[in-house]
Amino acid sequence: MIEYIMGQAAVAVFAITGVLGAVRKDRDILGLAVLGVITAIGGGTIRDTILNVTVFWVQDFKYIIVALTASVLIFFLLKISRINQARYRMLLYFDALGVAYFCIQAFEKTINLGYKFPVALAMAMITGMGGGVMRDVLTGRPNLLITKELYASPALLGIILYGVLRFFIPDSPLPAFTAISFIFVFRSLAIFFNLQMPSLLVNKRDHDS
Amino acid sequence: MIEYIMGQAAVAVFAITGVLGAVRKDRDILGLAVLGVITAIGGGTIRDTILNVTVFWVQDFKYIIVALTASVLIFFLLKISRINQARYRMLLYFDALGVAYFCIQAFEKTINLGYKFPVALAMAMITGMGGGVMRDVLTGRPNLLITKELYASPALLGIILYGVLRFFIPDSPLPAFTAISFIFVFRSLAIFFNLQMPSLLVNKRDHDS
Amino acid sequence: MIEYIMGQAAVAVFAITGVLGAVRKDRDILGLAVLGVITAIGGGTIRDTILNVTVFWVQDFKYIIVALTASVLIFFLLKISRINQARYRMLLYFDALGVAYFCIQAFEKTINLGYKFPVALAMAMITGMGGGVMRDVLTGRPNLLITKELYASPALLGIILYGVLRFFIPDSPLPAFTAISFIFVFRSLAIFFNLQMPSLLVNKRDHDS
Repeated sequence: MIEYIMGQAAVAVFAITGVLGAVRKDRDILGLAVLGVITAIGGGTIRDTILNVTVFWVQDFKYIIVALTASVLIFFLLKISRINQARYRMLLYFDALGVAYFCIQAFEKTINLGYKFPVALAMAMITGMGGGVMRDVLTGRPNLLITKELYASPALLGIILYGVLRFFIPDSPLPAFTAISFIFVFRSLAIFFNLQMPSLLVNKRDHDS
Repeated sequence: MIEYIMGQAAVAVFAITGVLGAVRKDRDILGLAVLGVITAIGGGTIRDTILNVTVFWVQDFKYIIVALTASVLIFFLLKISRINQARYRMLLYFDALGVAYFCIQAFEKTINLGYKFPVALAMAMITGMGGGVMRDVLTGRPNLLITKELYASPALLGIILYGVLRFFIPDSPLPAFTAISFIFVFRSLAIFFNLQMPSLLVNKRDHDS
Repeated sequence: MIEYIMGQAAVAVFAITGVLGAVRKDRDILGLAVLGVITAIGGGTIRDTILNVTVFWVQDFKYIIVALTASVLIFFLLKISRINQARYRMLLYFDALGVAYFCIQAFEKTINLGYKFPVALAMAMITGMGGGVMRDVLTGRPNLLITKELYASPALLGIILYGVLRFFIPDSPLPAFTAISFIFVFRSLAIFFNLQMPSLLVNKRDHDS
């Protein structure tokens, strides 16, 4: 039950990043809501299509309702508030929260379908980052994978952490809470302090051609 | 039968928008034709993949032939004619026609597969707008969802209108003709008069950062 | 067996183009590796999803391992070497090699699933060009279909050549080797000599609006 509520919350959070990424002057509520919904359900839709199971929101349409509602609420909040300056940072933190939850939930879903660790890891990455990458492509921004953001690493490490913890502590909510917190806190620190990988693992030359 | 012909016509119309969106100096016929085909079949392909039914053009390859033929014809028409100035407006009107037909046809297909109204509504939106959004992404334009265009609204209202009409007037072509005309005329008026939503539903601040 | 090894080699080659296309200053190894993997498996994933068969890398995860390894190796090679100037040309030639192999392999896979020539041709195009188009979209470049590159034509002619050859010379590796070489050499010549289609099949006007 708490898992279901958290899933809906993650969908709402991702929908909000879609609207935050797309809102500009004279944009109307419906175009933005469609963007919000695509961002919220994009990653999970690719996952379910690849795994050849019924797509989650076709089975339970409440996910779309939640994504739409969140998109509409943030639209009006942006209309009446003055959070323009902080908008992109808000997007990044909300995105971090959504990524953290979606990664772990997709890993668990894939394992429960009988797949092994590597496939579950791949599905976790696809689900966690798919919607955000689609949002960035559709709103005309460089996606977070190719910016200087430390984006894939917190997710990857957190999923591996989860895989190890759930092996040693099965049937407990502890691994999930630990891994979700790990991904969100690690990514938030990266945003806040503008963290980078050790220089061995970063390209230092200018390849911009 | 008339339904089948209209389906092929909508595919042709969408293929034309793909070529209109991508044609530039020194572009060759085959690259443009591939763009045309992707635009024409993109939305329906996503729909069928999500619904887990055989993709429509795998079942009936004539859709691809029609899309290819339309792409090639518009290519030569653009070569010999002087419609450059009006090209983007042509794209918008053709797109409106394709969206109108694809929305209603996808709604009907999804209902006939046994799904309820909300899923059919989502599939109608995906089918109607998927190909056009892919065209805009692949040709490097801001997609119509995030421009000032009133794009999602005519489609959404038209689909709801269709859902209501077909409930009260089943087994009649009237609901489909009414809804397709509604979407096309509403969207055309939006293009021609540069219509916008009521200001309550539009973001008036400058969020461009 | 040789077919399997060549399949893995093509995946590696495409992964390398993903990293070559995305690498910039301060980009970290994991973000680039994710891009490399998406480029390597993107086309085949769309193909298998449309054909409704188990996605190839879900069945055999070694494809992902190979793509990851190739991405990591090219990352370090770029760090220590001075091939910046030639980077984009390298990308084009590697891409040509990957396209050549993927087209023929996808054609064969689709035919073996019982589909006819036109569907196999479409799947060959999707598999051969899907990953590269995704790479270009995700790295913010105009994709090769809409640039002046002669991109779709070598692939299309090579696939048709393969279809004809395998009809007359079944159960022989000759058609595959001939067609793969044809696509790669034709495309390489197009890159090297900046070849264009006959002017009848090229748009000579300036449609850039």
